[in-house]
Amino acid sequence: MLNIGIIGAGRIGKVHLQSITYHVKGAAVVAMADPFMNEETRSLIEGLGVKKICSDYHEILADPEVDAVLVCSSTDTHASISIEAIEAGKHVFCEKPVDHSLEKIQQVADALEKHPACRFQVGFNRRFDHNFAAVRRAYDAGKIGEAHILKITSRDPEPPNPAYIKVSGGMFLDMTIHDFDMACFLTNSDVEEVYVQSAVLVDPAIGEQGDVDTAIITLKMKNGALAVIDNSRRAAYGYDQRAELFGSKGMVATANDTLSSAVISDANGVTGEKPLFFFLERYMESFSEEMRQFVDACEKGTEVPVGIHAGMQAVRIGLAAKQSVAEHRPVRLA
Amino acid sequence: MLNIGIIGAGRIGKVHLQSITYHVKGAAVVAMADPFMNEETRSLIEGLGVKKICSDYHEILADPEVDAVLVCSSTDTHASISIEAIEAGKHVFCEKPVDHSLEKIQQVADALEKHPACRFQVGFNRRFDHNFAAVRRAYDAGKIGEAHILKITSRDPEPPNPAYIKVSGGMFLDMTIHDFDMACFLTNSDVEEVYVQSAVLVDPAIGEQGDVDTAIITLKMKNGALAVIDNSRRAAYGYDQRAELFGSKGMVATANDTLSSAVISDANGVTGEKPLFFFLERYMESFSEEMRQFVDACEKGTEVPVGIHAGMQAVRIGLAAKQSVAEHRPVRLA
Amino acid sequence: MLNIGIIGAGRIGKVHLQSITYHVKGAAVVAMADPFMNEETRSLIEGLGVKKICSDYHEILADPEVDAVLVCSSTDTHASISIEAIEAGKHVFCEKPVDHSLEKIQQVADALEKHPACRFQVGFNRRFDHNFAAVRRAYDAGKIGEAHILKITSRDPEPPNPAYIKVSGGMFLDMTIHDFDMACFLTNSDVEEVYVQSAVLVDPAIGEQGDVDTAIITLKMKNGALAVIDNSRRAAYGYDQRAELFGSKGMVATANDTLSSAVISDANGVTGEKPLFFFLERYMESFSEEMRQFVDACEKGTEVPVGIHAGMQAVRIGLAAKQSVAEHRPVRLA
Amino acid sequence: MLNIGIIGAGRIGKVHLQSITYHVKGAAVVAMADPFMNEETRSLIEGLGVKKICSDYHEILADPEVDAVLVCSSTDTHASISIEAIEAGKHVFCEKPVDHSLEKIQQVADALEKHPACRFQVGFNRRFDHNFAAVRRAYDAGKIGEAHILKITSRDPEPPNPAYIKVSGGMFLDMTIHDFDMACFLTNSDVEEVYVQSAVLVDPAIGEQGDVDTAIITLKMKNGALAVIDNSRRAAYGYDQRAELFGSKGMVATANDTLSSAVISDANGVTGEKPLFFFLERYMESFSEEMRQFVDACEKGTEVPVGIHAGMQAVRIGLAAKQSVAEHRPVRLA
Repeated sequence: MLNIGIIGAGRIGKVHLQSITYHVKGAAVVAMADPFMNEETRSLIEGLGVKKICSDYHEILADPEVDAVLVCSSTDTHASISIEAIEAGKHVFCEKPVDHSLEKIQQVADALEKHPACRFQVGFNRRFDHNFAAVRRAYDAGKIGEAHILKITSRDPEPPNPAYIKVSGGMFLDMTIHDFDMACFLTNSDVEEVYVQSAVLVDPAIGEQGDVDTAIITLKMKNGALAVIDNSRRAAYGYDQRAELFGSKGMVATANDTLSSAVISDANGVTGEKPLFFFLERYMESFSEEMRQFVDACEKGTEVPVGIHAGMQAVRIGLAAKQSVAEHRPVRLA
Repeated sequence: MLNIGIIGAGRIGKVHLQSITYHVKGAAVVAMADPFMNEETRSLIEGLGVKKICSDYHEILADPEVDAVLVCSSTDTHASISIEAIEAGKHVFCEKPVDHSLEKIQQVADALEKHPACRFQVGFNRRFDHNFAAVRRAYDAGKIGEAHILKITSRDPEPPNPAYIKVSGGMFLDMTIHDFDMACFLTNSDVEEVYVQSAVLVDPAIGEQGDVDTAIITLKMKNGALAVIDNSRRAAYGYDQRAELFGSKGMVATANDTLSSAVISDANGVTGEKPLFFFLERYMESFSEEMRQFVDACEKGTEVPVGIHAGMQAVRIGLAAKQSVAEHRPVRLA
Repeated sequence: MLNIGIIGAGRIGKVHLQSITYHVKGAAVVAMADPFMNEETRSLIEGLGVKKICSDYHEILADPEVDAVLVCSSTDTHASISIEAIEAGKHVFCEKPVDHSLEKIQQVADALEKHPACRFQVGFNRRFDHNFAAVRRAYDAGKIGEAHILKITSRDPEPPNPAYIKVSGGMFLDMTIHDFDMACFLTNSDVEEVYVQSAVLVDPAIGEQGDVDTAIITLKMKNGALAVIDNSRRAAYGYDQRAELFGSKGMVATANDTLSSAVISDANGVTGEKPLFFFLERYMESFSEEMRQFVDACEKGTEVPVGIHAGMQAVRIGLAAKQSVAEHRPVRLA
Repeated sequence: MLNIGIIGAGRIGKVHLQSITYHVKGAAVVAMADPFMNEETRSLIEGLGVKKICSDYHEILADPEVDAVLVCSSTDTHASISIEAIEAGKHVFCEKPVDHSLEKIQQVADALEKHPACRFQVGFNRRFDHNFAAVRRAYDAGKIGEAHILKITSRDPEPPNPAYIKVSGGMFLDMTIHDFDMACFLTNSDVEEVYVQSAVLVDPAIGEQGDVDTAIITLKMKNGALAVIDNSRRAAYGYDQRAELFGSKGMVATANDTLSSAVISDANGVTGEKPLFFFLERYMESFSEEMRQFVDACEKGTEVPVGIHAGMQAVRIGLAAKQSVAEHRPVRLA
């Protein structure tokens, strides 16, 4: 049994709590910390049998019963808490992005070098999604041949509120970062060069924050494949999450998930359901699966499926994307 | 060059005229007869280069230049005109049904016995449809294995007007007769037994004519397969024409054709186009293809793809279906 | 918190145990009984925190802590154990079929009359499936208009072993019984008449047991709709579970669920995944949902979603289907 | 009746001959010229009733019976023959591209200025395709709202032979030029900026010719929309031609056309047909439709649907694309 402490009781912290409680064998959440926990949250946590509830996460790090921690706090604290946790001898699952600064991520990597027994996983949950995993599986099985063109469509149902945009690091580090990781995962390769064509088409308020809400991002992968990501902060029909990998032998493509397969034919046309509304509905199973594999790696001491390199790489691409917008040119990754 | 005379200048006669003129190589319509031809029709026919236009079809039968005739007159004259044409030494393409009476169809068969050089084809055009032909091709190729269950969905967009229903012979001889032929074609087998569960759900006026407008028809095929046809005289979303053949190794299924593959995703759902509206749109290409194969059989003296046996068989099943409704029991074919 | 005892630790008993433990809030399995429990099963049950494990179900019925029991024993004991449980003051969830005999089901109904506080639910889990529920929802919302034609396709991936067939009551009471319930559920109506055309096409050994393995079943519903079920004991491509409801305003149809939406296009064609393999994969979520609603009805004293009438009705149709085969005619329900 | 002369009896000249003969009312091909016509071609042309067959196209230009000419010769002669035909008082349909040089296209435009009665149409047939036309129709009808992201996938089944690549002007002027026109057509806007990420992944021999075979092309449209085209010279599954337009209110997307809708489910999966093999199969109907609209514009003196501006624009984008590759940067259109 792996005893887990969760640091941060916001939306994603609660997702992990529920998913560990209900869907992950061999693990239990024994402690949860958040400086700003309200009564509702506290009662939810208690209801799921968590013994220690505290405001200061140091209590969790100091608790010898805790084997692993999930870092679900605000992004600017991910790196420093991760390093503290690593040094306290805990396994660490850190939400994405590890940080907005490559230097800070490097500090985490350095801490890991010194603590080789520590299992450190980054929360790129989409790698564990049934559809995207099937794309990679087809590729690994040789069904696509060599990768030539990867296309990722990633569109949110609604933009975040402007206040959030300010602290988010911008669309590329907040939203596209998942797609950058997907591009690396699905082609099994790192990125060599980035070019972004972007615009503010959804909401001028986003532009006023210095951010964009619509983009087409071209990537040149190290293995020679080309990739393109298209992003929008608002798709009228909901959360649009698709990938298509084309290669020398063929193509594998995924569609959006829906609540049911029911299709209604009537005088207006032939109408199926919209995509599942947002990431909590769409990716719920992937949150359980990433946790199962993290628990497994901790228990067995095997390699985690998404390590610090992936966490660093996605941020590196995101920063290059921002630079491409600023300088209006393709940018090579260092 | 096969010189063709068309007897009957109604809707289907015009379809064949246009399809031969535009889409069939090696054949030309040289004569057309109809006792009730209006000016518009005459001008259409002239415009397509037909040399002889007459009211009495005997002129066509007597014309030594005419190699083959298409019998597109009203159903009650199909058999007698066919026999005259056979005896006049013409090849014959006869619209479906050959007749509502098995005796009269037998008379046509008898005439054919005496004129073995005559190519006689029945107008079951759906056999030449790209989708249904693909089902049969998959079956012939062994991809389905032995046939176990055939499902045919056949629903019209609108019921015919009540006056037509009176002379149509009822839904089973008018509309379902195509599906009966499809059942034989797709399983490559004759029918052994018929059971009908039917109702008047679309329009009470149809019931007042002694007919039904909704039915589920179960067939036991001679090769052991079971088949089911479902019919409605009115599908709100248009013309619904699908088939599904299930067997020991798998299943082949078809979908409806649409004008385009465009699908719109918006706040209301994910909506594709309705099926092509009615048989002229849906089956236009099959009318050309049946004619090409008829012309080919005439020119080469080879076997026609749909002979008098198929024409007889479909009517036999239709009559058994009517008997099943009347006697509320399964009916074995003689 | 509803305390539940499970009687029977076979496949379906374990499904309910896991689904209550992991997916149902407000309920816990506190006791489980089976006369033939092996070590593996016992250890699984213990691992999920069940306090009382016994061989005699009477211990569960006598336990004042147990609020509700799930009857997951062999079919021939469903009715008698249900009656005992009702009389012991427990709520009862009884697996399908309640019995093969209408008399025995009536005895359960009689017991319920005398214990009006008892919540009694029958295990027709497919009513809670996301696809079938969406069909009914569309119908209830008036999108289909009046129901005219219902089509249910229900095909198993593999036939059961011959030994099981002997005790199963035959295909209609074992497999089709779910489809009979679906027909009533999806049209929101009872059945008036049944006609079966059936065959032994999958395995002669099934015929030797006096059973069939392939069938087309036509139903006339009390509300005037026609329905057809097609069954096979073996679909080469897996578990085929679809429904299509056609009415005056349109049609709603469902497709099979798959593990992912990935589609591979290559030189061989455009290939998607096969349906989810069998009922445990396909219907897992519906088992949780039926249990949630049962727990809810017990806690609140509200009506259960699938009561004894539905349990009786499905068996009544199944028996009529057997009679239709035996007497080769349509059979009206009493 | 519009009398048409065709200059050039290669593949596309024959396509137009057959399509006018069989599918276009109110027009006839009366003359055809090609300096290198073989016996087979001559006999095909004669068989379709063309009266004048000659080697020198000047005979056609001098023929007062000829109302319009189709310029289907090699690309380097398009502009000069078009100008001669315009000055000879003929209407002109010119195959794409009008020329590889903007100066020469401008000369054609200048000639048209002086002959305002001349109808001059460029052969961008895909605008008349049922799927792409449906996308534009949805956009024009306001169903997509403002255009934000356009995605075009355009992949050939096989690369052309290396000899052709030499004279083709490279992939962007030969193949992508259709997609450039589509981008303008589907967003109803001109292009402002182009960026290309390209590679040689299909065949090194293409690279040796100084060309590329795989590309992702990002376009910024004048109306603010972003567009992306992905190209490959070889898709193992055939000719891949799709478009997806995303906007403020929703998305419209098309799929590939297939020979039939038949889908086979078996132990290997659920497999539909590959896309129609190549442009002759895929776009045949669009060749007829562009010709119908050209004939109509000539007869009525109305505007042609694809004029010299579109012909110029597509080449302009193609040249910018080549420059983007050469200079590895986004290129603004003059």
